[in-house]
Amino acid sequence: MEPGTAADDRRPRPAELHAWRSFLRAHAAVVSRLEADLVSVHGLALGAYDVLVQLVEAPQHRLRMTDLADAVLISRSGLTRLVDRMVRDGLVRREPDPGDARGIWAVLTDAGYERLRSASRTHLTGVRRYVVDRLGPEQLAAWGQACEVLAEPEPD
Amino acid sequence: MEPGTAADDRRPRPAELHAWRSFLRAHAAVVSRLEADLVSVHGLALGAYDVLVQLVEAPQHRLRMTDLADAVLISRSGLTRLVDRMVRDGLVRREPDPGDARGIWAVLTDAGYERLRSASRTHLTGVRRYVVDRLGPEQLAAWGQACEVLAEPEPD
Repeated sequence: MEPGTAADDRRPRPAELHAWRSFLRAHAAVVSRLEADLVSVHGLALGAYDVLVQLVEAPQHRLRMTDLADAVLISRSGLTRLVDRMVRDGLVRREPDPGDARGIWAVLTDAGYERLRSASRTHLTGVRRYVVDRLGPEQLAAWGQACEVLAEPEPD
Repeated sequence: MEPGTAADDRRPRPAELHAWRSFLRAHAAVVSRLEADLVSVHGLALGAYDVLVQLVEAPQHRLRMTDLADAVLISRSGLTRLVDRMVRDGLVRREPDPGDARGIWAVLTDAGYERLRSASRTHLTGVRRYVVDRLGPEQLAAWGQACEVLAEPEPD
């Protein structure tokens, strides 16, 4: 397809591309600040924190590995290795699914719960400092609404 | 620190936390749609696409590995392994830095340039479809401006 044909109209304009790149830069910047705080204060990577949050919010603090993979927001790739490390650190344990021979549950341990409780102070302070305090209340609300639209599933 | 003390005020309110989580969900959703398109049409992961973009935009299509690590927006972790794979695939080559015995440059190859050129059609169509077309023009601009604020460096 050559430039100037109909499909070329689908390329974003420079200002649109700039907004998109700002989104990627914002994500990279905020995530790396939150991760640096969690690692320095609690020795916990942000991906591991994300796993703990998904488990604590699940019924009985447990999720099938496949559902955990759908739920996490930070590190979908490398999740199996991440959970391996968290099992070694005692934050999560694996249990076979009695109803499905191939199914494995990831279950939050008491130590994982305690770790999350102490790390969440640091994390939420960071969310406030790196996100909430940087945007005005209306700007934050509009930003969140736009993000919600983008997170919606693709229409069929 | 107990609830109700001053530091507790630093926790985001539920609506603020909701906006933040929408941002993470939007990022995870859009990135996974863009990646699925790139992989299915070009066999190229989004992180590899990101590396190609950073190199093509650099003077002489080359960056020191340390500068490449600062520049990429998708996969800061695992960058060395990613570049290893891209070298094997002929998209990037490594060159020693004549001025620094420990320095290594990553250099875009002709094959990498061609791969980027063809993949960028798919990618930019995706950015338009998954981001630009979903937000109104004013909403997109406001969203991009908020993201720009978040991407700014921390004040000293």
